[in-house]
Amino acid sequence: MGIVTVPKQDRSRVTRQRLLEAAISCLAEYGWAGSTVSVVAERAGVSRGAAQHHFPTREDLFTAAVEYVAEVRSQAMRTLALRASHGTRPSPVRTRAVVRALVDLYTGPLFRAALQLWVAASNEAELCPRVIDLEARVGRETHRIAVELLGADERVPGIRETVQGLLDMARGLGLANLLTDDAARRERVVEQWAHIVDCVLKSRR
Amino acid sequence: MGIVTVPKQDRSRVTRQRLLEAAISCLAEYGWAGSTVSVVAERAGVSRGAAQHHFPTREDLFTAAVEYVAEVRSQAMRTLALRASHGTRPSPVRTRAVVRALVDLYTGPLFRAALQLWVAASNEAELCPRVIDLEARVGRETHRIAVELLGADERVPGIRETVQGLLDMARGLGLANLLTDDAARRERVVEQWAHIVDCVLKSRR
Repeated sequence: MGIVTVPKQDRSRVTRQRLLEAAISCLAEYGWAGSTVSVVAERAGVSRGAAQHHFPTREDLFTAAVEYVAEVRSQAMRTLALRASHGTRPSPVRTRAVVRALVDLYTGPLFRAALQLWVAASNEAELCPRVIDLEARVGRETHRIAVELLGADERVPGIRETVQGLLDMARGLGLANLLTDDAARRERVVEQWAHIVDCVLKSRR
Repeated sequence: MGIVTVPKQDRSRVTRQRLLEAAISCLAEYGWAGSTVSVVAERAGVSRGAAQHHFPTREDLFTAAVEYVAEVRSQAMRTLALRASHGTRPSPVRTRAVVRALVDLYTGPLFRAALQLWVAASNEAELCPRVIDLEARVGRETHRIAVELLGADERVPGIRETVQGLLDMARGLGLANLLTDDAARRERVVEQWAHIVDCVLKSRR
């Protein structure tokens, strides 16, 4: 076999991608205070100089990482929506699957990283407006996909707020899972609330 | 009038109290990374030496502040419960008032401070077990008081999880309020979910 040469542009893209993924896992693991550009570069197996070539400042790196979190989350939700559109009509079983999938979005490492950034942004003037803007966009997309997956009709009074409250609950469940494994309790809450949401939607379909 | 002498013990208690309150407001404002003992001492108008006399380490200071947060929160909830016990029987109006009061617990500066500690604890081995222990105690008490205020019968299947999910939603609404004023949206969500919770409880009373 000869030597495989990777085009320079592709190498650069791979390096960037590795830095973004390392930034997310550093945030989830060390928090904002412990996540410097050096720490992220080391985790990514990239020199500090190369990291700074891609992201001149710490804010640039983590803002890009937040964008990346949002894109991965959106992708995961689009996959869910696609699967659902091939699936069954609204039913208790489907509602339970959708509620569980939505709650899952808030309990993985992506949510942990986003939470660290969210909280850091509340104390960092540089970070705050970028995170607010991002959260508004991600929030709108999550809501839109939740409505679609649940087969909810938002023209009916109260349905919009039902879906919003459900997503607030999912966010709260994510927070409850931060320090301890809350899976057993969460499963029972999801079971009961999927039932409640299904009843509310059914009565107004 | 003569010179008013404050007993030494009282002065010490007042200093301690001021340090704890300053620790909470520093946490809410600067986050964990920005909240050193010096910063808190300055905010409290106390010398660094006096602060260290009361709390030898940073962890001691903030652990005590967390305990203090918990005590203030419990007190607020006991006041709510007391008011409710003088009030009306379970009704839609009372359920709405209770849901609103529970959600309010998660949107003030105490929640902001607790959130900062919670997230810091996920990256600080020293802090983590203390915060886990505290959150378990506070969580149990919040749940107990919510059940009492709502007049919920937990022997009925699903009711325990209904109340738990409601408190998760309140926590999620608190998080949504961290970077922007979410009051208008929150009010509509509270209105709709109070209605839903009231229907669930009513059907099983």
